[in-house]
Amino acid sequence: MSQYSSSLLDSAVNEFAKLPGIGRKTALRLVLHLLRQDTETANALGNAIIDLRNGVKYCKVCHNISENDVCEICSNSNRDASVICVTESIKDVMAIENTQQFNGLYHVLGGIISPMDGISPGDLEIDSLVDRVAAGGISEVILALSTTMEGDTTNFYIFRKLAPFNVKVSVLSRGVSIGDELEYTDEVTLGRSILNRTPFSDSFKI
Amino acid sequence: MSQYSSSLLDSAVNEFAKLPGIGRKTALRLVLHLLRQDTETANALGNAIIDLRNGVKYCKVCHNISENDVCEICSNSNRDASVICVTESIKDVMAIENTQQFNGLYHVLGGIISPMDGISPGDLEIDSLVDRVAAGGISEVILALSTTMEGDTTNFYIFRKLAPFNVKVSVLSRGVSIGDELEYTDEVTLGRSILNRTPFSDSFKI
Repeated sequence: MSQYSSSLLDSAVNEFAKLPGIGRKTALRLVLHLLRQDTETANALGNAIIDLRNGVKYCKVCHNISENDVCEICSNSNRDASVICVTESIKDVMAIENTQQFNGLYHVLGGIISPMDGISPGDLEIDSLVDRVAAGGISEVILALSTTMEGDTTNFYIFRKLAPFNVKVSVLSRGVSIGDELEYTDEVTLGRSILNRTPFSDSFKI
Repeated sequence: MSQYSSSLLDSAVNEFAKLPGIGRKTALRLVLHLLRQDTETANALGNAIIDLRNGVKYCKVCHNISENDVCEICSNSNRDASVICVTESIKDVMAIENTQQFNGLYHVLGGIISPMDGISPGDLEIDSLVDRVAAGGISEVILALSTTMEGDTTNFYIFRKLAPFNVKVSVLSRGVSIGDELEYTDEVTLGRSILNRTPFSDSFKI
């Protein structure tokens, strides 16, 4: 006898429980919810998952998720093709797009260098970034990676790789978050934000 | 252009976000997680959901979820077929089974009477419960519903329906939860637990 008196229920709970942040109790709740819905709703979810994994494409140029061979950002002639913003994942592209402050192109690495997790530069889309820069027409590469040790390592690795080319390499500014109280800001961030202070008139830009 | 630069991603996020307790941010996180998994993992989840909704059966006798026409609890000859425990949902059957304190059969109503939500006695499996009792061989019906107003209403309705038959109708005992401090127990529960006090020797049974 299976744990939930039905092997179908059992396997659905097991599969849901593999998702991050979903334990067996939540999985069971979701499965019982699906059982109360009509067949179309459950089929729609099931098919959306299968279609997603089998049908999704990645842009040949920037490795962002895409409908076509080249994504809509890379093929948009209104965007500034001379600036490339390097991100760790698709999610970061979405986050930057949501700010509506960037009009260049992207390059998704697919991760950051992390020897602890066995991720070396060869596993990432770094060579294809160097190729894009080597092909010419790029004036600036913005490194928009996490401000962790792994992020800094990756930043430095890419910076060295791009050194032979005549291209400006920049990183996101570090500083006090908007809405933060100074009292609770960590020392390193506060120290950097004093060193990298900006003209007051620039703070009106956003 | 769809919100996430891919209509497949878009529809997967939409479908996940329909599940209870999952908003669009969590849905996106789950979808991006699935994109990082191999195809088998994603297909397994998708197929488990579709198979579940299309393949699941309900026991003809007790309306619990089942592999066959009659569930494994109802068809188990080691269980006491003269006692029926009435529950609101499949989940409650699982909860009671986990206690390992009940060896009778179940009857799943599929909900409780709730005029506010438009659920009337006709929407529930009450008539089939009365038929089971009328068929004879049942000595006791245990009402294991929520201790809410809707639960009490349903209890009373079933009690009235079963009045013509020679069957004992009981409810779960109400009282102070094990591990609770008296100070924080609500007055109604505490009052009832004094009225329904049990011999001290009975408290060793579990």
